[in-house]
Amino acid sequence: MGDRTVVINPNSDRAVTAAMDRNLESLRFAGGPAICCETLDDAPPGIETARHADQVVGPLCDLIAREDHRAGAFVIACFGDPGLASARETTNKPVIGICEGGVTVALNHGEHYGILTNLPDDIGAGLRQIRGLGLDARLAGIEACGIAVTDLGDAQRAEPELAAAAQRLKDRGADVVILGCAGMVPYASGVERAVGVRTIDPVHAATGIAMTAARSCNKGT
Amino acid sequence: MGDRTVVINPNSDRAVTAAMDRNLESLRFAGGPAICCETLDDAPPGIETARHADQVVGPLCDLIAREDHRAGAFVIACFGDPGLASARETTNKPVIGICEGGVTVALNHGEHYGILTNLPDDIGAGLRQIRGLGLDARLAGIEACGIAVTDLGDAQRAEPELAAAAQRLKDRGADVVILGCAGMVPYASGVERAVGVRTIDPVHAATGIAMTAARSCNKGT
Amino acid sequence: MGDRTVVINPNSDRAVTAAMDRNLESLRFAGGPAICCETLDDAPPGIETARHADQVVGPLCDLIAREDHRAGAFVIACFGDPGLASARETTNKPVIGICEGGVTVALNHGEHYGILTNLPDDIGAGLRQIRGLGLDARLAGIEACGIAVTDLGDAQRAEPELAAAAQRLKDRGADVVILGCAGMVPYASGVERAVGVRTIDPVHAATGIAMTAARSCNKGT
Amino acid sequence: MGDRTVVINPNSDRAVTAAMDRNLESLRFAGGPAICCETLDDAPPGIETARHADQVVGPLCDLIAREDHRAGAFVIACFGDPGLASARETTNKPVIGICEGGVTVALNHGEHYGILTNLPDDIGAGLRQIRGLGLDARLAGIEACGIAVTDLGDAQRAEPELAAAAQRLKDRGADVVILGCAGMVPYASGVERAVGVRTIDPVHAATGIAMTAARSCNKGT
Amino acid sequence: MGDRTVVINPNSDRAVTAAMDRNLESLRFAGGPAICCETLDDAPPGIETARHADQVVGPLCDLIAREDHRAGAFVIACFGDPGLASARETTNKPVIGICEGGVTVALNHGEHYGILTNLPDDIGAGLRQIRGLGLDARLAGIEACGIAVTDLGDAQRAEPELAAAAQRLKDRGADVVILGCAGMVPYASGVERAVGVRTIDPVHAATGIAMTAARSCNKGT
Amino acid sequence: MGDRTVVINPNSDRAVTAAMDRNLESLRFAGGPAICCETLDDAPPGIETARHADQVVGPLCDLIAREDHRAGAFVIACFGDPGLASARETTNKPVIGICEGGVTVALNHGEHYGILTNLPDDIGAGLRQIRGLGLDARLAGIEACGIAVTDLGDAQRAEPELAAAAQRLKDRGADVVILGCAGMVPYASGVERAVGVRTIDPVHAATGIAMTAARSCNKGT
Repeated sequence: MGDRTVVINPNSDRAVTAAMDRNLESLRFAGGPAICCETLDDAPPGIETARHADQVVGPLCDLIAREDHRAGAFVIACFGDPGLASARETTNKPVIGICEGGVTVALNHGEHYGILTNLPDDIGAGLRQIRGLGLDARLAGIEACGIAVTDLGDAQRAEPELAAAAQRLKDRGADVVILGCAGMVPYASGVERAVGVRTIDPVHAATGIAMTAARSCNKGT
Repeated sequence: MGDRTVVINPNSDRAVTAAMDRNLESLRFAGGPAICCETLDDAPPGIETARHADQVVGPLCDLIAREDHRAGAFVIACFGDPGLASARETTNKPVIGICEGGVTVALNHGEHYGILTNLPDDIGAGLRQIRGLGLDARLAGIEACGIAVTDLGDAQRAEPELAAAAQRLKDRGADVVILGCAGMVPYASGVERAVGVRTIDPVHAATGIAMTAARSCNKGT
Repeated sequence: MGDRTVVINPNSDRAVTAAMDRNLESLRFAGGPAICCETLDDAPPGIETARHADQVVGPLCDLIAREDHRAGAFVIACFGDPGLASARETTNKPVIGICEGGVTVALNHGEHYGILTNLPDDIGAGLRQIRGLGLDARLAGIEACGIAVTDLGDAQRAEPELAAAAQRLKDRGADVVILGCAGMVPYASGVERAVGVRTIDPVHAATGIAMTAARSCNKGT
Repeated sequence: MGDRTVVINPNSDRAVTAAMDRNLESLRFAGGPAICCETLDDAPPGIETARHADQVVGPLCDLIAREDHRAGAFVIACFGDPGLASARETTNKPVIGICEGGVTVALNHGEHYGILTNLPDDIGAGLRQIRGLGLDARLAGIEACGIAVTDLGDAQRAEPELAAAAQRLKDRGADVVILGCAGMVPYASGVERAVGVRTIDPVHAATGIAMTAARSCNKGT
Repeated sequence: MGDRTVVINPNSDRAVTAAMDRNLESLRFAGGPAICCETLDDAPPGIETARHADQVVGPLCDLIAREDHRAGAFVIACFGDPGLASARETTNKPVIGICEGGVTVALNHGEHYGILTNLPDDIGAGLRQIRGLGLDARLAGIEACGIAVTDLGDAQRAEPELAAAAQRLKDRGADVVILGCAGMVPYASGVERAVGVRTIDPVHAATGIAMTAARSCNKGT
Repeated sequence: MGDRTVVINPNSDRAVTAAMDRNLESLRFAGGPAICCETLDDAPPGIETARHADQVVGPLCDLIAREDHRAGAFVIACFGDPGLASARETTNKPVIGICEGGVTVALNHGEHYGILTNLPDDIGAGLRQIRGLGLDARLAGIEACGIAVTDLGDAQRAEPELAAAAQRLKDRGADVVILGCAGMVPYASGVERAVGVRTIDPVHAATGIAMTAARSCNKGT
């Protein structure tokens, strides 16, 4: 049985996949298990609406079914955790969503966490998602940087806006900040340096959980 | 700077430390970072009371201070997470408690989690701890196996009692079970096989978070 | 602008649609607004998995788009509220899900509500859904009748099992019971009579909210 | 048995009753069930204190007892839901309070709701009431317009202050706003137009629940 | 200004008032402040319904107004805390309800508290009351002894039934039990002895808070 | 058996002990039970870190053991409630912490409470503590006055800063304010006068609970 961790970017933006992949380099070792990042070509360039999220579930589950024989665990690398329940019906390997995975890891790094999101209109749905996960007790808040997922590639604009939003989270009591969109992962170090508050790349965090689970000694043979 | 993960058993029972160490073998690779398990000799053989937990904080922080220069992250391997706040004042490396770490990982593996504890009298304090962590929304329950921490070495007795308590958790809706005492880690596979519900060794889970954090690319130099 | 209320059964079982339609007869008047029940032919016969729920979103939104010009409000008549967020992106008319609608109405009829569901495995997802709605404070419990949605047509078997499960909810403190599956609506009266606890047909309840909203005097022109 | 819905304004201000009655016109049809609005003459002109609320319970229950033979359901049209428990002891017909009814309906129209109240001193009691209903998870906030119930008749002053308070609720994340006093119902359309956020007249919403319940097919004979 | 603590039994059963008075003897000293127990003659013999509770508010507030000049604090000695908000409008002295006061004191004596109530039908309203107080996090449960308030005088029957219900609370995790009806106070010692769990007489506990508040050094002149 | 209430200041600042003692004078009577304030000489001058709190547990429990034979109840007079669980293992007399005791009493004096703390960095830990107590539902907020515990003796600076922070709590909805540090007790009257909101000295409040419990008639002989 394989033990590779398959990290799926459920949108079709290959630049996002490449950025994730670079951040995951620190988890790869010569003799260690493989981490493999996949783009869902059959998907919109960014998941910006509920409809987008619903649309990617089919192709996402198809990809999981194809990779299942050589995978030890999966990561769904979109902060809306699209298709997480359906994916867990598709395979009995662990499937980690980067929202659930990123938030649960963040709880180990600070007393109250904040989430950076894209647009003000995303905040309500974000709160519902966190409430659905039962993880709202230590949420300091969600702040929007004002940049749509498809525009996050513009580092000149994105990094300062993300830092400003992270500062607002810190002012609201957050001592750990989560990048609430896979497209933000290139800015993890920059935000952490600028604001002085620990910043979680949720793809990295969720991949750590996935890899650890794939190597747990109490898995059925 | 070192990147070894130091896993501290804050009681003086070396058999418990050895059992943890064996379960962590699956996370070691030739070219990967070191995982080093330490026993707190200056501690009682099991942490069974609040007073015990308070007593180990001093020696625990001393050990962390001594190991800090070569460590990338620490794990406190007692489910009461004794001295977690004090430890985080002692070092700026990540310090992961196995209760907080084990529960947060478990949330990625099931909708509702249950916790196995030692004695019926431990349940109230366990509920307070989970409530303090803000993680009670998805708790199915806590069940005692009826065996004190210092008697968990008797596998003939321990494994069936742990399996029976895990079954009671499953009956209360748990689809993932956490071993709520470091002394239970030898029984992870056995409980999982007997009850058919995913079982989390919290030392393994917390060590995964610690190792991942120690290798996060956005850490200050 | 139309003011008909369009009630969509998002599975392809026309017998379920017909049963809903009969229960809604009491809300129709000679001079009153139309209530129109639609079957989603392009769907599985019952929505039994997360994957099923994800699959119906596309056809559901297409139907809403087609009916939008003559509708005043929509009801999604599956207790998983599949596609509710996507539907609300598709139209600016009110869209009521029968879980959210049924539970919120039930709160007006009793202090603590219980939910009847199909199978034991559905309970965990049901709890997550209620938690996501932020409506768990007054939930007495969820009990399974042990009958899959596609077998609910067998009244000889279904009604007594539903009544028994409703009795268990009453024993757990429920003073109002919600039929947690559109396929259960034919048994509303029978369960209420058998157990002596007010029983909510959530399709009827949600349709009442939809009709009322469609006729609110403070709607844009 | 009658099926008229009796909407009781438990204060003695007939102008408030008349305004409610106008807003309910949209729920009346030639062949449909009657909606009848009653003023509680034996009551203060506005319910502004806990003492006022306690004082109206007796006459309110007397009115319900007198109307019971020809009513299908009752609505208590004061946002404090005065006497709701006592009223439910007086009749076995559904009795809907406009706070519980208005909030539960609002949950179907937005992710987070806000409540407009009269005076800053009312906010604490409002929060206690919402907490008692177990409906605080999705509350964005309560904002006072600064106008006592007995002064709400002055439209020149009331409408802009209500709109300003509704805007503050929107700024706090509310995507649906509830008029938290029956005396505010004349301003539902104006507030909705001014602020661009869906506004709930709770008398209208609660009457919809009452009428629907009165016509549920599973009522005892 | 007076500093007597006025404890009001808001029903007309003088035997209940006398029993309270005896239990409060331990808080009286030669040189200490007076504690004075009053019966509300203008009230039913027991407060068994919401209507009863509403009915006593008027006479209760009248009594408070009459006693205000010589009182330092008031206690409302019925576990439903009837008229608490109205009473606090009537005087600016502290007014302590025995539910709020008894539960808050109990939290200092155990991790999880249980409440003894009279009849099974009282449990739902009790839960709503505790939820309204925001004190449900540490509630182990409410158990009925099966004896109406007006029958609690029969010690032969009452004490064993109360002890049995207290045992059920202990089995559900309560390590402190509150007598949830002023009529139960004669049985405090008996229940504590029989079940071996600390038992709170809420009249005694609330009177302690009232007396302490009446002698706080930071009261206005 | 003794019935003195032993109030322990678990830091070594005798001026703080003396200030507490003065505020408790109002609870002493010629014929009443003794209240005795003790300083923990073997402790830091202020408890400012988790490590400090852990360090005082040993000497605190030793003191309790020494005083147990003549004590009726104990108070731990530091707002972090250090060693409360360990103390309760050391004696079977009631042990009241001033955080748990102060907050629970405050709930009887206002709908929403606020807490004054020393430094902004203390807020996160304060929230965790309140959440662990299950008492967050009615918390309006925690505000820092910006003065370390060891500098609170400077009244010229402390009182206005405390009043300003109390005003911020009032603006956030608090109608009762708790002094969240034993070193603040000299300013209780001043803050209450300046801000016009009831202010709780938690040492006074907790001592009231302790004295009342020590004289409860249902204590084992």
